[in-house]
Amino acid sequence: MTAPVHEIPERSGTAFVLKAGDMLTVIDPRGEQVADLLAFNARDLDEVISSGRTLDYAEMIYLTAGHQLYSNRSNVMLEIVADTVGRHDFLLTPCSVDTFRHFYPHLPVHRGCFGNLAAALEPYGVTPDRIPVAFNCFMNVPIDGETGKLRVLPPISKAGDHIQFRAAMDLVIGLTACSAPDSNGGSFKPIHYRIDSAAA
Amino acid sequence: MTAPVHEIPERSGTAFVLKAGDMLTVIDPRGEQVADLLAFNARDLDEVISSGRTLDYAEMIYLTAGHQLYSNRSNVMLEIVADTVGRHDFLLTPCSVDTFRHFYPHLPVHRGCFGNLAAALEPYGVTPDRIPVAFNCFMNVPIDGETGKLRVLPPISKAGDHIQFRAAMDLVIGLTACSAPDSNGGSFKPIHYRIDSAAA
Repeated sequence: MTAPVHEIPERSGTAFVLKAGDMLTVIDPRGEQVADLLAFNARDLDEVISSGRTLDYAEMIYLTAGHQLYSNRSNVMLEIVADTVGRHDFLLTPCSVDTFRHFYPHLPVHRGCFGNLAAALEPYGVTPDRIPVAFNCFMNVPIDGETGKLRVLPPISKAGDHIQFRAAMDLVIGLTACSAPDSNGGSFKPIHYRIDSAAA
Repeated sequence: MTAPVHEIPERSGTAFVLKAGDMLTVIDPRGEQVADLLAFNARDLDEVISSGRTLDYAEMIYLTAGHQLYSNRSNVMLEIVADTVGRHDFLLTPCSVDTFRHFYPHLPVHRGCFGNLAAALEPYGVTPDRIPVAFNCFMNVPIDGETGKLRVLPPISKAGDHIQFRAAMDLVIGLTACSAPDSNGGSFKPIHYRIDSAAA
């Protein structure tokens, strides 16, 4: 039995519980589409995914299969167990009304991944101020090591590419199909995901 | 009248209120010493310094004079108005008991900047789970743009080097003299700071 594939429509988001041991596969069905991922300890929402802890322990800004994503309390929340892309971002916060005003003053303002995550996570008790730097699946943010300049380039993901995580604790997950033009090669596409339950 | 210089003893931390318009100068009196800096909106502690927002708006991981440090709500908290060093870190969380166990298993565990900040900020109502990625003054974390590998090297700051910030809102500031061997060239030194009040 293969678990069903869920679709996150373009420029939207969702949230769900991922139990310890469950596998989450985030799929880019058309290519060049980013998915922002957040994780909270389902038993204590004050424990949350931490870019700073993770990058410190990994000694690496580009994470891929074998790397672990840590919480603000230095506990492993997720392990990356498979990755067909190898380029994701863990530096930048989800796009928001404010980032639209800053980067796209000529475009209609969108609530962005931040607004989508806040809405999706609200029923779980997560408030907007608790949204940290997300693990941005497929987001391509190269750094110039000399100058420190960063660029947001189109993802290198092709249709069907995916990244798979194993949950190390019971988690509330927030996940989006990203809304920012530059992050997604200029067009907005859905994201697919699949949960393979450890209990199945 | 020159404002007094305060000393943060080696491997310790402090917290204080910085009013809008006040200038904070963080000084490395001996050279090669890191100071982790946190900022919270003094009127609403849920608004907090955000590496992800700041790096996104700056399009740069190495921040210096002219850059602004943003909150999780996309408001400017601090502006860097002077900087004699030009190399600071805004990727990594403060060192902690857990990071000591991870990186220095052969050394006595220290509560680190995280523990020092938690203790110094507790009287202001900041709880440990609210401590995010700090702006790590003088911390030298070069990135290999090809591989994404990061290294924690000795600071390039010399005795007397400093970085100066202007507060854009009333802030609770946490500030340390960092406790981690690798971050500080292998020895622990004090940090000095000075507050030039806008009201003076």
